[in-house]
Amino acid sequence: MSLGEFDIIAKYFAGHAHGDEVLLGVGDDAAVLGVRADRRLVLAMDTIVEGVHFLPDADAADVGYRALAVNLSDLAAMGAVPSWMSLSLSLPRADERWLNGFAAGLFEVAGRYDVQLIGGDTVKGPLVITIQVGGWVEPDRWLTRSGAREGDAIFVSGTLGDAAAGLALLTVGQRPMQEAPFEFLRNRFLRPEPRIALGRALRSVATAAMDISDGLLTDLGKLCEASRCGAVLEVEAVPTSQPLQATFDVDRRLQYSLCGGDDYELLFTAPASAISALKAGAALTKIGVITSGRGVECRRSGQPFTPRQAGYDHFAH
Amino acid sequence: MSLGEFDIIAKYFAGHAHGDEVLLGVGDDAAVLGVRADRRLVLAMDTIVEGVHFLPDADAADVGYRALAVNLSDLAAMGAVPSWMSLSLSLPRADERWLNGFAAGLFEVAGRYDVQLIGGDTVKGPLVITIQVGGWVEPDRWLTRSGAREGDAIFVSGTLGDAAAGLALLTVGQRPMQEAPFEFLRNRFLRPEPRIALGRALRSVATAAMDISDGLLTDLGKLCEASRCGAVLEVEAVPTSQPLQATFDVDRRLQYSLCGGDDYELLFTAPASAISALKAGAALTKIGVITSGRGVECRRSGQPFTPRQAGYDHFAH
Repeated sequence: MSLGEFDIIAKYFAGHAHGDEVLLGVGDDAAVLGVRADRRLVLAMDTIVEGVHFLPDADAADVGYRALAVNLSDLAAMGAVPSWMSLSLSLPRADERWLNGFAAGLFEVAGRYDVQLIGGDTVKGPLVITIQVGGWVEPDRWLTRSGAREGDAIFVSGTLGDAAAGLALLTVGQRPMQEAPFEFLRNRFLRPEPRIALGRALRSVATAAMDISDGLLTDLGKLCEASRCGAVLEVEAVPTSQPLQATFDVDRRLQYSLCGGDDYELLFTAPASAISALKAGAALTKIGVITSGRGVECRRSGQPFTPRQAGYDHFAH
Repeated sequence: MSLGEFDIIAKYFAGHAHGDEVLLGVGDDAAVLGVRADRRLVLAMDTIVEGVHFLPDADAADVGYRALAVNLSDLAAMGAVPSWMSLSLSLPRADERWLNGFAAGLFEVAGRYDVQLIGGDTVKGPLVITIQVGGWVEPDRWLTRSGAREGDAIFVSGTLGDAAAGLALLTVGQRPMQEAPFEFLRNRFLRPEPRIALGRALRSVATAAMDISDGLLTDLGKLCEASRCGAVLEVEAVPTSQPLQATFDVDRRLQYSLCGGDDYELLFTAPASAISALKAGAALTKIGVITSGRGVECRRSGQPFTPRQAGYDHFAH
């Protein structure tokens, strides 16, 4: 079967764009979008590689889902509304079953967040997927990593460590005694939920925000670096899920929740008083405070605490 | 040497953005750009893969140059002014020498066309480079592939076949008798020149336009398909360079100029009379005419002619 580049785009990825903004979509040399002077353009790009960001035997729909979800998480961290995406797909072969699955997962997320596919590229090569996602935010109301101030409280959404635990269970093929916790943890890794609504709600509240992709300690360190401040983190305050608690002992839970990546929850700072009124659509937990120092200091039961493992950095391993 | 992801972006790729448009550049979860209501946003994305789009031993600066140049060529084909890019770099290892070379080639093109790097992603994986390039065009003045009309003349810029000949010479390690033609042909493959100025000039003249990346016959076929028309192509009118003529016989020249990809010249249609006044900055040659039929019909010395080889399609091989 000869399945040309043009056919792949037309067959699996064209025809999904709609709405006034996309003036020219998939199929020409480039896409053309209308803009509005009362908004700012927000752009994020993330790449996932087989064997690095997803397992070689991963379900194609999960790969498609993940490729877009991790990008939307970046827009959530900016307080932006997602709008469009470009897709680059490097593929070893044109496998129809895989492409159908990938497209299904991709458009499941795209449909949920009303993201239009406007173009991209399909090439022969190792399995590498890059998405550029674009969205819009009101002038002067986007969230950065650099606005945290001494005395701000540090918050996270949802629970942490689930995705790293899910990946560990998937990798070793290990199943816990109960099926339900395994499913929950596995799905937290495979199907991260971008916190778009929370990001929108935080625009008028948070002083700094980012999504947690590399692990809480690593990412809080980046936020402090960007904001030129320090942080004290109460590790026992870091929220963990019931399935994580039911499956792993406290040491492992701490390791996953502090150092495990891929949760894609939001980490943000704000005056403690400002959060009570927030309708977040996700549980929010205070886990520490911003200081005038440098770096992240962990405390456990009031004592200094040193976690065993650092966060994930592609090129440090 | 540990060279973390954050370090790579900061060391090689940050600090190049400037200008009023980039409100937030490299280093946060996403970039933020200002927009103007009197312009439309034009977006193109191209991926290049080691061993597919460039040779495994390619000079890093040539790879960086090419990664951006092929994207800019898409904007040229739209009549747009380039403005910014996002870079995804999947790398097997953090090789400082390679990264320095790549960045030098990338920013050589970026500087020439005033393109700001606003963000991207750096991951561990096979050598795959994706760039999303963005630019701007006036409302209702962009060029598409779909506007060709019966009776329009077909034009190309520059000369065709040089890049395919250059690649062939590079691949087999074969050098012609003279060094100068080899250098010329090699550079036409390694360092394609995006026809930005020509694209801008064509906005008020051309009925359809695209860049030639997959070969003249293949790309003219796509233009006809998009415009729902046919074309008669005078193969002897297709312009070839003096170095190509000096190095290859007429059959090989025809093969390269009709079927060879990677020239990144512009292919466009327009009323024949409209072109004479054009200050194009590149030689323009009339090579045929648009018909009411379907598909591309080649003529040589007034007779129907069938070229020996089809164009390049990643997944057909």
